[in-house]
Amino acid sequence: RQDAAEDEEDTSLEDPWQDDEYFGSYGTLRLHLEMLSDRSRTETYRQVIVSNSASLRNKVVMDLGCGTGIISLFCAQLAQPSVVYAVEASSMAEHTRQLVKQNGCEEVVTVLQGRAEELELPEQADILVSEWMGNCLLFEFMVESVLLARDRWLRDGGVMWPSSAALTLVPCQADSYYSEKMAFWERPYGLDFTPLQPLAQQEFFTKPKFSHLIDPKDCLSAPCDVICLNMYTVQVRDLEEMEGEFKFCVVKPGVFHGFTAWFTVQFESLEAGGATVELDTGPNSDPTHWKQTLFMLDNPIHVYGGDSIRGNIVLHRNPVWRRHMTVTLHWNINSSSDNCQVGTKSFPMWR
Amino acid sequence: RQDAAEDEEDTSLEDPWQDDEYFGSYGTLRLHLEMLSDRSRTETYRQVIVSNSASLRNKVVMDLGCGTGIISLFCAQLAQPSVVYAVEASSMAEHTRQLVKQNGCEEVVTVLQGRAEELELPEQADILVSEWMGNCLLFEFMVESVLLARDRWLRDGGVMWPSSAALTLVPCQADSYYSEKMAFWERPYGLDFTPLQPLAQQEFFTKPKFSHLIDPKDCLSAPCDVICLNMYTVQVRDLEEMEGEFKFCVVKPGVFHGFTAWFTVQFESLEAGGATVELDTGPNSDPTHWKQTLFMLDNPIHVYGGDSIRGNIVLHRNPVWRRHMTVTLHWNINSSSDNCQVGTKSFPMWR
Ligand SMILES: [Ca+2]
Ligand SMILES: [Ca+2]
Repeated sequence: RQDAAEDEEDTSLEDPWQDDEYFGSYGTLRLHLEMLSDRSRTETYRQVIVSNSASLRNKVVMDLGCGTGIISLFCAQLAQPSVVYAVEASSMAEHTRQLVKQNGCEEVVTVLQGRAEELELPEQADILVSEWMGNCLLFEFMVESVLLARDRWLRDGGVMWPSSAALTLVPCQADSYYSEKMAFWERPYGLDFTPLQPLAQQEFFTKPKFSHLIDPKDCLSAPCDVICLNMYTVQVRDLEEMEGEFKFCVVKPGVFHGFTAWFTVQFESLEAGGATVELDTGPNSDPTHWKQTLFMLDNPIHVYGGDSIRGNIVLHRNPVWRRHMTVTLHWNINSSSDNCQVGTKSFPMWR
Repeated sequence: RQDAAEDEEDTSLEDPWQDDEYFGSYGTLRLHLEMLSDRSRTETYRQVIVSNSASLRNKVVMDLGCGTGIISLFCAQLAQPSVVYAVEASSMAEHTRQLVKQNGCEEVVTVLQGRAEELELPEQADILVSEWMGNCLLFEFMVESVLLARDRWLRDGGVMWPSSAALTLVPCQADSYYSEKMAFWERPYGLDFTPLQPLAQQEFFTKPKFSHLIDPKDCLSAPCDVICLNMYTVQVRDLEEMEGEFKFCVVKPGVFHGFTAWFTVQFESLEAGGATVELDTGPNSDPTHWKQTLFMLDNPIHVYGGDSIRGNIVLHRNPVWRRHMTVTLHWNINSSSDNCQVGTKSFPMWR
């Protein structure tokens, strides 16, 4: 249920970072199990360690937001770093310590419970590894903690994993979601329930749909990377407003129901010329626990092969609720037929 | 997320009926869409109206907790009752009034917004129809409102739809759920995460799993009706503690992971000798939005064809949180081999 997050509440009484709620949810197993059960995600991090195992020898690694410590344990078991600092703010840290011991890694892995902002390490790190990505890449803004840790604890010339990230967008059909939530009211059981459609639009299409799995055949064009982050140079202040442009060429006739977004992240090799590892959460890779994010237009638009859809996307971080943002999409359809349509819609995620 | 419901809070500050939360959730479309999209449920109520349409002529119908008014609209369109009082406590009632008008039924259907307890009708009803069933039949105890309305507004000799209800139980395997939540920790990615198993048991097996869909082949024996409600005679005070006994004969070797529960309700005909209509939410019928409810034992037990599993189930209504209950299962396995095992486990739903 997203209900709780949707309520507007008296901000003076609440932490705008919602840390009790945020770290509280990572103090139980549910989210950790979901992440660990995501084989694409977890095997990618494992692959990064495996393919860099020689270069990791004697390195100092920091694993920020380590959760159950899986990445740190991969480092200790598959490579020979001098030390891994496994940092976790939630109460899961106690269990992580136990897992490190159970797997005989306590000589290498040091678990530190605390927030990145308050972190004290005995030395600087050669490598900062973290799995900080959220829906639409930035949601929940754990990336801010990673950037603070980078600026304070990564040595000059140290390596960031991921090293870069991109948000990708595609205009799409979403026929079954549209039918289920909107067309449904047209004639259910022979009755006219259309008076509920404005309510349905408000309730189901105002916010993006997390956990969408787009079928590649519902993409109306090739996808486009709209925002790219260089993890070495991006600054916390840059996160306040991120903008990207797109131009899509529609490749087949269809119904333009909305945009689907996902992200990729890249892990550069520690060796010059070594292969980059990529985690792709898009529709042409195995589904991950992030799935994709669907932004529904208020009204579907027919488009045709050869039409272009240009526009931009702005991710505006909520100035009060620091883990939230608003995604604004602006589009301009240039059709082979004479009609040219423009539109704008802003989607709170979640406030 | 069930998180909010799981927190123990200061009871003095909160309504033990949690009516703001309960009726609030029925003020949005999400739950109504889920119920309407459940064709088994909705078509059963429609079938009840259709097969009784002649007898409904000139009758006074009360539809308690009418939601979007679908049952009332079926009555008005498929039969000729003199009036249908459509009673809804949540703010959905405003929209229901609009739907009644849109479908030209305002001469027959009168929408009344209010709680059953405060209900004032101009006359007594011949038929009280309601869709009050929750998980494990009783969860959320909307049935109490139905019984109060019955005692006050159903005329002597009036008809209750449903007329009776039963809770059904079966001992079962739940291999994939067990693997996913418990066996998972044994060797994920070559690591030993078993120290998390006690946590997993606490987090995933303490409460029943709603939304379980049991495969009929995972039933270890024939199911057994453990609690039956006669909707004419059951009293509100009877709901405080309901007990049922079972004896299952295991029909094949397997792993006894827990019990699965579901319910059936019956709608008697208005005509003497007319056919009863049944809604069956079990594994041998089309899945409904209730699905089934899974109660996991702490440890799986091997059982064999010919073993018997006897015991009882007690549904104990929470004395404070009036929409909640605790389900206690007691079992005694009598095995063809010499071992005889007994066990007891109580499952809060949700407090
Ligand atoms: Ca994450
Ligand atoms: Ca119900």
